[in-house]
Amino acid sequence: MPSHQSQSERALGFEVMLPMRHADAIPVVRDALKAEGFGVLTEIDVKATFREKLDKDFRPYTILGACNPPLAHAALSADPAVGLLLPCNVTVEETDAGHSIVRLTDPEAMLATASGLSGAVKQVASDAHERMTRVTAALRAPRKA
Amino acid sequence: MPSHQSQSERALGFEVMLPMRHADAIPVVRDALKAEGFGVLTEIDVKATFREKLDKDFRPYTILGACNPPLAHAALSADPAVGLLLPCNVTVEETDAGHSIVRLTDPEAMLATASGLSGAVKQVASDAHERMTRVTAALRAPRKA
Repeated sequence: MPSHQSQSERALGFEVMLPMRHADAIPVVRDALKAEGFGVLTEIDVKATFREKLDKDFRPYTILGACNPPLAHAALSADPAVGLLLPCNVTVEETDAGHSIVRLTDPEAMLATASGLSGAVKQVASDAHERMTRVTAALRAPRKA
Repeated sequence: MPSHQSQSERALGFEVMLPMRHADAIPVVRDALKAEGFGVLTEIDVKATFREKLDKDFRPYTILGACNPPLAHAALSADPAVGLLLPCNVTVEETDAGHSIVRLTDPEAMLATASGLSGAVKQVASDAHERMTRVTAALRAPRKA
């Protein structure tokens, strides 16, 4: 869906539009992540956070911290600085029309900031990239009602 | 401390060695973040996660998700895709010698992955960069016993 992609998203990750509200999209996204071995370690309710900390309104927006434990273990064992990039964020934002935009980190694109990475870290990033690509494809596929 | 910096850290953020154990370093890091308006929204106990999910041992290692709410609100309002980069990770890793390596995301370096960012997002990243620089300086300063 090129029309929904901003410049930064093209670099940072993938994007999928789901024809459902934010609250319904969250479990769908969690299931798709789980199928590729990503558990959700953190969940930030951005709307509630802005309400609480700033007393400002915001649209429904959640940041999920997705982690594939074997890949994370391999990456952190090879280079502990990779922790600055973990877990992989997946965001779910409700649009004015009541649909949801899902954005998924591309681990390879994210690691592109770092220079001098070891072969082991690059291999993990490549594996994680493939998995996030499949998660994206699964979310884009038609769902049963 | 160039001798402790890996190639990737030079690109991704800052690094400070604290002469204390992991458990003592966490509140020191939280206080330094708080002084620059960063609250901790998420805290991942990496060692416990690997123990639980993989039954593998790992050194004490925590990933803190630091967020300055006014900056996050400005960034997400300007470009919702920036949520892929929030919150700013700060990691605390215990060394074999019982000291702690603190790594802090440089928001400007992290945004360098994304192309075509708006002026508003760049301004927020610059502000966040200055704050993380001051957090790093505060952690490097000698502490009272």
